[in-house]
Amino acid sequence: MSSSFGKTIQVSTFGASHGYAIGGVVDGLPCGYHIDRDKLQAFLRRRAPGQNQFQTQRKEADVPEFLSGLVDDTLSGSPLAFMIRNTSQHSGDYNNLRDIPRPSHADFTARMRYGDKVDMRGGGHFSARLTAPLCVAGGIALQLLARKGIRIHGHLKQVGPIQDASVDMVHPDMDALAHIATEPITMLDESKQQEVESLVLKLKSEGDSTGGIVEIIATGLPAGLGNPNFDGIENRLARVIFGVPAIKGVSFGGGFNMCSALGSEVNDAFTMNGHTVTTTTNNSGGIQGGITNGLPLVMQVGIKPTPSIYKEQRSVSLSKEEDTLLTIKGRHDPCVALRAVPVIEAVTALVLLDFLGDIDHELR
Amino acid sequence: MSSSFGKTIQVSTFGASHGYAIGGVVDGLPCGYHIDRDKLQAFLRRRAPGQNQFQTQRKEADVPEFLSGLVDDTLSGSPLAFMIRNTSQHSGDYNNLRDIPRPSHADFTARMRYGDKVDMRGGGHFSARLTAPLCVAGGIALQLLARKGIRIHGHLKQVGPIQDASVDMVHPDMDALAHIATEPITMLDESKQQEVESLVLKLKSEGDSTGGIVEIIATGLPAGLGNPNFDGIENRLARVIFGVPAIKGVSFGGGFNMCSALGSEVNDAFTMNGHTVTTTTNNSGGIQGGITNGLPLVMQVGIKPTPSIYKEQRSVSLSKEEDTLLTIKGRHDPCVALRAVPVIEAVTALVLLDFLGDIDHELR
Amino acid sequence: MSSSFGKTIQVSTFGASHGYAIGGVVDGLPCGYHIDRDKLQAFLRRRAPGQNQFQTQRKEADVPEFLSGLVDDTLSGSPLAFMIRNTSQHSGDYNNLRDIPRPSHADFTARMRYGDKVDMRGGGHFSARLTAPLCVAGGIALQLLARKGIRIHGHLKQVGPIQDASVDMVHPDMDALAHIATEPITMLDESKQQEVESLVLKLKSEGDSTGGIVEIIATGLPAGLGNPNFDGIENRLARVIFGVPAIKGVSFGGGFNMCSALGSEVNDAFTMNGHTVTTTTNNSGGIQGGITNGLPLVMQVGIKPTPSIYKEQRSVSLSKEEDTLLTIKGRHDPCVALRAVPVIEAVTALVLLDFLGDIDHELR
Amino acid sequence: MSSSFGKTIQVSTFGASHGYAIGGVVDGLPCGYHIDRDKLQAFLRRRAPGQNQFQTQRKEADVPEFLSGLVDDTLSGSPLAFMIRNTSQHSGDYNNLRDIPRPSHADFTARMRYGDKVDMRGGGHFSARLTAPLCVAGGIALQLLARKGIRIHGHLKQVGPIQDASVDMVHPDMDALAHIATEPITMLDESKQQEVESLVLKLKSEGDSTGGIVEIIATGLPAGLGNPNFDGIENRLARVIFGVPAIKGVSFGGGFNMCSALGSEVNDAFTMNGHTVTTTTNNSGGIQGGITNGLPLVMQVGIKPTPSIYKEQRSVSLSKEEDTLLTIKGRHDPCVALRAVPVIEAVTALVLLDFLGDIDHELR
Repeated sequence: MSSSFGKTIQVSTFGASHGYAIGGVVDGLPCGYHIDRDKLQAFLRRRAPGQNQFQTQRKEADVPEFLSGLVDDTLSGSPLAFMIRNTSQHSGDYNNLRDIPRPSHADFTARMRYGDKVDMRGGGHFSARLTAPLCVAGGIALQLLARKGIRIHGHLKQVGPIQDASVDMVHPDMDALAHIATEPITMLDESKQQEVESLVLKLKSEGDSTGGIVEIIATGLPAGLGNPNFDGIENRLARVIFGVPAIKGVSFGGGFNMCSALGSEVNDAFTMNGHTVTTTTNNSGGIQGGITNGLPLVMQVGIKPTPSIYKEQRSVSLSKEEDTLLTIKGRHDPCVALRAVPVIEAVTALVLLDFLGDIDHELR
Repeated sequence: MSSSFGKTIQVSTFGASHGYAIGGVVDGLPCGYHIDRDKLQAFLRRRAPGQNQFQTQRKEADVPEFLSGLVDDTLSGSPLAFMIRNTSQHSGDYNNLRDIPRPSHADFTARMRYGDKVDMRGGGHFSARLTAPLCVAGGIALQLLARKGIRIHGHLKQVGPIQDASVDMVHPDMDALAHIATEPITMLDESKQQEVESLVLKLKSEGDSTGGIVEIIATGLPAGLGNPNFDGIENRLARVIFGVPAIKGVSFGGGFNMCSALGSEVNDAFTMNGHTVTTTTNNSGGIQGGITNGLPLVMQVGIKPTPSIYKEQRSVSLSKEEDTLLTIKGRHDPCVALRAVPVIEAVTALVLLDFLGDIDHELR
Repeated sequence: MSSSFGKTIQVSTFGASHGYAIGGVVDGLPCGYHIDRDKLQAFLRRRAPGQNQFQTQRKEADVPEFLSGLVDDTLSGSPLAFMIRNTSQHSGDYNNLRDIPRPSHADFTARMRYGDKVDMRGGGHFSARLTAPLCVAGGIALQLLARKGIRIHGHLKQVGPIQDASVDMVHPDMDALAHIATEPITMLDESKQQEVESLVLKLKSEGDSTGGIVEIIATGLPAGLGNPNFDGIENRLARVIFGVPAIKGVSFGGGFNMCSALGSEVNDAFTMNGHTVTTTTNNSGGIQGGITNGLPLVMQVGIKPTPSIYKEQRSVSLSKEEDTLLTIKGRHDPCVALRAVPVIEAVTALVLLDFLGDIDHELR
Repeated sequence: MSSSFGKTIQVSTFGASHGYAIGGVVDGLPCGYHIDRDKLQAFLRRRAPGQNQFQTQRKEADVPEFLSGLVDDTLSGSPLAFMIRNTSQHSGDYNNLRDIPRPSHADFTARMRYGDKVDMRGGGHFSARLTAPLCVAGGIALQLLARKGIRIHGHLKQVGPIQDASVDMVHPDMDALAHIATEPITMLDESKQQEVESLVLKLKSEGDSTGGIVEIIATGLPAGLGNPNFDGIENRLARVIFGVPAIKGVSFGGGFNMCSALGSEVNDAFTMNGHTVTTTTNNSGGIQGGITNGLPLVMQVGIKPTPSIYKEQRSVSLSKEEDTLLTIKGRHDPCVALRAVPVIEAVTALVLLDFLGDIDHELR
């Protein structure tokens, strides 16, 4: 169950960083929909490493091979299964890590959980490489949602200390967000893009890393989607999003900033827009009681600095039970948040499609 | 499924604010354990309203009546079921709300989800009153965990703009946290307690409200508890915690603050403590890759201001489809975060007990 | 999870035979439907013991008290919770059974699973008394299904060696089945009813028991309901039905008799009925590949003889680890199959309503 | 969810009969166990078609390619994923079936469920070919169970009207069952084997088919495995086994024969065997109240005649909405029950391993 999520539409991922292949299975997708393969590949390129100087130089083509569920690029009713072959592993880079766990990585906890036979080369099944299958599944979900008028876009709300321009939560400019989606730094404010570029190149040269905040906006959702208590929009989204590596926080709408505000400041007043009920502000992030209210869904995801840094770090030798120093090899991103934007978009799309599948017979 | 959670130990809650009773069922608790009823009642008192001047003046005794699963105060192997009778409803206070939804409440979304027959008096099934059954179940879970050496305590990290003293994440003083648990304002710093008291009384007199952040610390967890990907500690905790009303964000360890830090600053260096692997800092909050590392689990939960304020607010008449003004009656907390501390402790205990049940045959 | 089932509509039961109360929770029922309480009570009477001389003489009124989810007899959107107080326990009858397990009962396996603190008086949580909450939930499901034109009726296909008249699987006479529902022996053939009455009274006087086969027919189901593989109609029905005590087999359509037939004899030929596709025979029991084809759903459920017989039996003393003889007290049915008909109807209704909830937005 | 099962160990299958590949994913297998690939292949050969004259002449090598989860033939902690390429499809054989559904096949119901874009060539995702991935996963489960002293063997209790010798349910001769496992007709009684051979060859020449009953015996299970109510041994087994094509009934122990017996005849008397509690008969099939009692688990599975027969049959043209005649091409088994024995063994192994995983920390 650990590698799966979803109720009506169930997604599972498999693979390890240095195995033969990674991949995924999506069960419950609606039959008969045509998938635009070029558009899917363009989406996958946004996550793929080695595309520009701000990323790891690992080259991974990330081209999925569909094993079942797609006939003539049309969903055929059986589970959609696909694999992506692993081609660019440098397994030798990980030889010393079997004994010396990398700080703030899952090396140590994986051993505690699975024993010392667990394959953790390149992060094993815990690797961020497992976000590639999520993007394949999510890229398809985004296409299905688009036909229902639902759009999902993210931007880097923050990288290190640098903050992007803020998005209007009631009337977000989705075209502007779509426009920046393929840029290396997914920010709306160009000057901030440049600041981030400088910061990332500096950290790269120093062998250090930083974190960031991805903000996601989804428009076009019907009011009334979701459930109360433990199966609402936030519950399912948060559960799945914490499955993406390096994430330390998830918040909605006004998020943690609301904690220091007054009710009279942050309550979202209702108002009529023709025959439609809407609100004048959107601190609720489009959700009340786990259920959409028709306003844009707004979510923030906090991502820690890449734990793989090149500076010498303190760790331990598990076999000798003594402190030691560790220098990490391999090719790592100075800021994983940069490549996380499409991943969070993909995961959000999968969760929202699952909710829609609960009520939309066509999507079943 | 909406009102249930848990894998090995499944919790479900039922009831509505103004119905006959609320309650819960816990399936999968280990058989043969004795429950200290007085201790449980003391725990429930921490959440119950009407205890002091900083809270709503609704009086609710919150005494559970056990329907099954407990024989001579000992868990008997069948599902534990209990109810708490509703006694203090003023249903008349809610008459105008059938047509005029309260801003930032679930009144409107519940109608969109369930239609206009839904019973939303007092918040219906979405009411914070449903946290009482969570505390009954969680209070029992806390007793079971205590026998395994696991302690869970929370404090108010922040109320409005006022911040409590920070807790040492590697060696938290759990006795100090236990000591403040029964105080009206669960803060470590006494001067901050008084500031909060003044703020809350001021807001109460003004008919306004504010939010806060609850921080939870759990010690004594074995290393290796949890799972990767979508079924780890953060995944299950976040899913359930967003089921508690008014919560807008969940973060772990260094949380959102890590997003602006450097990897070299926040990576948790491993070090030996005798034969045990530990870390010198705990920005990971005791979890890596969804699995515990043996350090204290640290989580922050962001709670918005109580949306029920007494100031006049803008809303709409659903029947007339026109804007209108709304004044809320009823008895509400100026800061729900104050009473949320035991609720978050309870929920954390239930989720962690569920994980322990996966590996501890005795707890099955 | 052990006491719950259902995906869109989740049912859970609680209680033990000799506890304070038994009951259930149903989450996910559609909001706004009116429940006919008299009709429900009439349905419950079919299962309740003490109604006639062919049953145990325990008197149990089996009147549910609704704790939540019902406002003015209308489903209100929150989980439906109810309890039935236990009133007629003779706990003393079970004193010797703590040490001497009853043959073919769960006394021994419950101890192996839960330890010796498990409360097994009257069968504890394993008791057939737990079928009362199933009938409350299922009785309501039957009312909801009836509005969709779906009818579910059962009869005793066999009691001991006595077989009822067979039902036309393509065009079953549902009115005839409805007509016999309230008779003590639910058989279509009156002469067979009398044979069963004689058999049961004879067994009662001898302190012995026998088994039977309940056959269920459901009409009005749309074609296309269900799923392939592990989540089809048979899968979910069988899973839940084996949760009813004393059941040893479940089969569909032609059942085990098909195993010795030829394909050319039992294949169901398609034929047009106006614009509707139907079949000339119904050995498939209305299901192909886990999905309904629009023909009546037909299922057989095999029930073993009541294991509680009054004849002296061989057993063991668990404390002394030696063979011993056991004489059972208490009040038991000579043939539990007689009272099982409404239980199987109820459970079938709950599973089919759950499937319908997947596709019928109104039922969500 | 439709293509998945399992709680601690989750199995999912993907693929369609005429797609690129079929396969499966198993999440939750214990890390560090070595898999004997030759033994696995030998097990798969028992299911593979084209092995002898009593089967379809389709040749399918059924060699799994492992995509992840296996490093040096050792389980590595990440989900086990594998595929089997489809090589022997004659898709042309199915051209006429898009419009004319085969009697007693899922052709028609799949269209009702998924619409007319569903790929049903060769049975699509409903094909018996999907039992190959179940055998890969189950073959591995059988190896893991064997190390815990658990053996699972099946035989053909019946083929058409021909019945095998019966197995002693208390002390089954597992070596004898192991001995016949690789024979074309898995019967203990050699003379009956020959009768079946004659029958099957006769049916083959006539273009007809027949059914059968597979009986499974599992020994070495600890007492106390399983759960009451809806999550017991029978519940999970039945749910999964009805996911295998062509199955019409599942029963345990004495099965449907118990329905006509007396309690005094079929109750299983307890008796001591040294310090171990055992029973003198095993009509319970090793299970009471959903929980194992330490006796052999005994289950019968009823399989209908292969619906694909070569005799002309009546069906309908869906496009013309008129009755028509159908002659099926393709290569089909005259008795699918023959090849079902290893499939049912495999599925039983997966379900029992899942239960063991709940309690055996080593298997987690």
